[in-house]
Amino acid sequence: MNDSGGRKGQLALAAFFHPTGHHVASWLHPESQIDAGTNFRHYVQLAQTAERAHFDFIFLADSSAVRHGNLNALRRWPQYMAYFEPITLLSALAAVTEHIGLIATATTSYNEPFHVARKYASLDHISGGRAGWNVVTSGNLSEAWNFGRVEHYEHDNRYDRAREFVRVVQGLWDSWDDDVFVRDRESAIYFDPAKLHVLNHTGEHFSVRGPLNVARSPQGYPVIVQAGSSETGKEFAAEYAEVIFTTAETFDKAKAFYEEVKSRMAKFGRARDHLKIMAGFNPVIGQTDAEAEEKHQFLQSKIHPEVGLELLSAALGGFDLSRYPLDGPLPDIPETKGSKGHFKQVVDMARVEGLTIRQIYMRYAGARGNRTVKGTPTKIADEMEHWFRNGAIDGFLIQPPHLPGGLDEFVATVIPELQRRGLFRRSYTGRTLRENLGLPRPVSRYAKQPVPRGAG
Amino acid sequence: MNDSGGRKGQLALAAFFHPTGHHVASWLHPESQIDAGTNFRHYVQLAQTAERAHFDFIFLADSSAVRHGNLNALRRWPQYMAYFEPITLLSALAAVTEHIGLIATATTSYNEPFHVARKYASLDHISGGRAGWNVVTSGNLSEAWNFGRVEHYEHDNRYDRAREFVRVVQGLWDSWDDDVFVRDRESAIYFDPAKLHVLNHTGEHFSVRGPLNVARSPQGYPVIVQAGSSETGKEFAAEYAEVIFTTAETFDKAKAFYEEVKSRMAKFGRARDHLKIMAGFNPVIGQTDAEAEEKHQFLQSKIHPEVGLELLSAALGGFDLSRYPLDGPLPDIPETKGSKGHFKQVVDMARVEGLTIRQIYMRYAGARGNRTVKGTPTKIADEMEHWFRNGAIDGFLIQPPHLPGGLDEFVATVIPELQRRGLFRRSYTGRTLRENLGLPRPVSRYAKQPVPRGAG
Repeated sequence: MNDSGGRKGQLALAAFFHPTGHHVASWLHPESQIDAGTNFRHYVQLAQTAERAHFDFIFLADSSAVRHGNLNALRRWPQYMAYFEPITLLSALAAVTEHIGLIATATTSYNEPFHVARKYASLDHISGGRAGWNVVTSGNLSEAWNFGRVEHYEHDNRYDRAREFVRVVQGLWDSWDDDVFVRDRESAIYFDPAKLHVLNHTGEHFSVRGPLNVARSPQGYPVIVQAGSSETGKEFAAEYAEVIFTTAETFDKAKAFYEEVKSRMAKFGRARDHLKIMAGFNPVIGQTDAEAEEKHQFLQSKIHPEVGLELLSAALGGFDLSRYPLDGPLPDIPETKGSKGHFKQVVDMARVEGLTIRQIYMRYAGARGNRTVKGTPTKIADEMEHWFRNGAIDGFLIQPPHLPGGLDEFVATVIPELQRRGLFRRSYTGRTLRENLGLPRPVSRYAKQPVPRGAG
Repeated sequence: MNDSGGRKGQLALAAFFHPTGHHVASWLHPESQIDAGTNFRHYVQLAQTAERAHFDFIFLADSSAVRHGNLNALRRWPQYMAYFEPITLLSALAAVTEHIGLIATATTSYNEPFHVARKYASLDHISGGRAGWNVVTSGNLSEAWNFGRVEHYEHDNRYDRAREFVRVVQGLWDSWDDDVFVRDRESAIYFDPAKLHVLNHTGEHFSVRGPLNVARSPQGYPVIVQAGSSETGKEFAAEYAEVIFTTAETFDKAKAFYEEVKSRMAKFGRARDHLKIMAGFNPVIGQTDAEAEEKHQFLQSKIHPEVGLELLSAALGGFDLSRYPLDGPLPDIPETKGSKGHFKQVVDMARVEGLTIRQIYMRYAGARGNRTVKGTPTKIADEMEHWFRNGAIDGFLIQPPHLPGGLDEFVATVIPELQRRGLFRRSYTGRTLRENLGLPRPVSRYAKQPVPRGAG
């Protein structure tokens, strides 16, 4: 059984908006929005479609650099080369939506906690309690170079910094008590100074006095999201995350991950129910399974070998594969400072299944480590239901292969099927993202009657 | 004559949205929006009102810290204690407006150029070319404390950093040529790598490789705004600013400032016309001059002595005035690291006019160094016309004493008067903020046929 908590046995569903879609060749699909990286109306349409379908939230990934690599390949692979900064984009989308949650990535490696605390709190106010922060660490040298560093932080050091970063941000979010504002014109008193708190944080990585210059936000804290799958990442998630994005490809792996992370929560005094594990999910929908397969093959056929190699290289921490034959095996690859999660997944897949380089990138390019299900809406809903009812996940992060078409199809065909089965809401019941996800509103650390962490 | 350029003898007008209004006691006005710091709808209303009146742009100030000081005073003076982060707020407002420009402050002292370049470029895309950046340096210790520093940068050092910061940001904005995107599905080529540029900046304060991961924005560069009045500030403005906010209180001072700054532009190869000087302007509107005076006195009467002292202290770089008699003269005050502009203005005013501490703060609290005009719409328009037609300014930054009422009054009474006189537009003629202000779109430094700076 999954830990659906206040959601009464219903899936959590999120929509992941890569500019033109999840598939590496999505921009070559004739129905994808080809200028997505500069087209605000495209995102308005996506967000409003997702809201009409009652998704819990939309999610935007981020990086603080363009991809560095082989420009001959990159000119064919524009994803995340030039696109909107996600917090400005989500703020704009907040103004044209009412219910849907708004989650974006911000790195702890090249930001300041004060700025991050402020922006997400501000977004939470603007949206009336719909903001969430996907906490990441940066493993790309290309990001380091934009911030005056010649090399990036080591993996464990990045997580040390991330942990302190999150603690500072949460401390800043508690600066103003929920009831600090008196706003009494008669006595000319606007706030009660006893309910304004100075953080005075001095740590290994940061020294931040506070208080934050934003009021405590509707959700108390915007929802904390995390996606790391390394040992350090899982430990971090069990302590801080309220949503985890995972990339398990099989039911068994997903279930093992689910149990492992949830069982780690107790030692941090947290209830299992207060963390929602959502698997990346790449639906390719057809009226028949054959039609879905055909649609998938269409995009697969558009993967240029240069792009396939570049993509695989990036997943392997920048290892140059161009010297190896496309139809030969993956060479031995030293572990790098790059993302451990993707790296391990790709190498494991290659070894276990004895795949060639071309076979790996063809597999990886479509869903990049996420579960791809090709078939009818019924088949897709069956798969989602199986994972959910049997305790492998709390929900899914839907990654349509191309946008907006892939989202439109999912909303038109799979959502109604999930609703018929009682697996997904027909209307929003909560006012905030936390309420819709069934997550508690964090109590301030300064509240007079402290409630145990995670039991709020 | 002013340098109205493409504007055909019309004023530039901006609306400055302090949360509850410009006056230090604005929140005590029964018609101000008392929860402005967390009320998004309040800002939507303000922005849409300003757009209906065809203002060039709205402006939001910023600080990266709450005010530090005497909490007994600050509890009565909530301005800029807890409020929206301005870039998230402007992004949200971009989605519910169509024509009006959107300008916010961001400090060069505690930000990274890559982040700033990205956010303003993103806002420029979201808004279809309506973004502007007010470049400031931070002189408050309270800001330094939130970013791991125990003291802030010295005044001139702050400007060195600001100059390099702006150069890096502009370099990043040129990363992608305007015509870099091929977006050709047939050849599977999305962009031309020859038109993507790596900045490779290594300077005294920053080392930033680039390129920016946002496409060159509709305006080329968002409009650069500046407000410093020190020698260094004026030099910086003459080199980089396209809009200057100034706080001259008298026509003669405004005219002298106007001539001085504009005459400095030639040595940077810039046309006078490519910088718009806008004076802060605090209109108190009545059906008669007496009614306007009465309205002014109402807010003045609401200034608590603690707030008056705190405000004056802040303008004097934190100098503690509480030991001196309210009705005695201003003591000798050593020059500090604080804002030189305000400091000098306040001290000069006190010396020249022989004012007591109470008289100074009463004067300063209302308009904080800006011109206050109390009277009928005709009188206010007369004053604006005089300054404009006689070469003291290119426009005004309107700072209504309380919001939303003060803006509503200005829009209902003064704007029509200015329009009748042919001094202000009746509809937007440009698509972008630059077009509405009569500013050229900057040519990329990488353009094949370079156009001399400022002549684009």
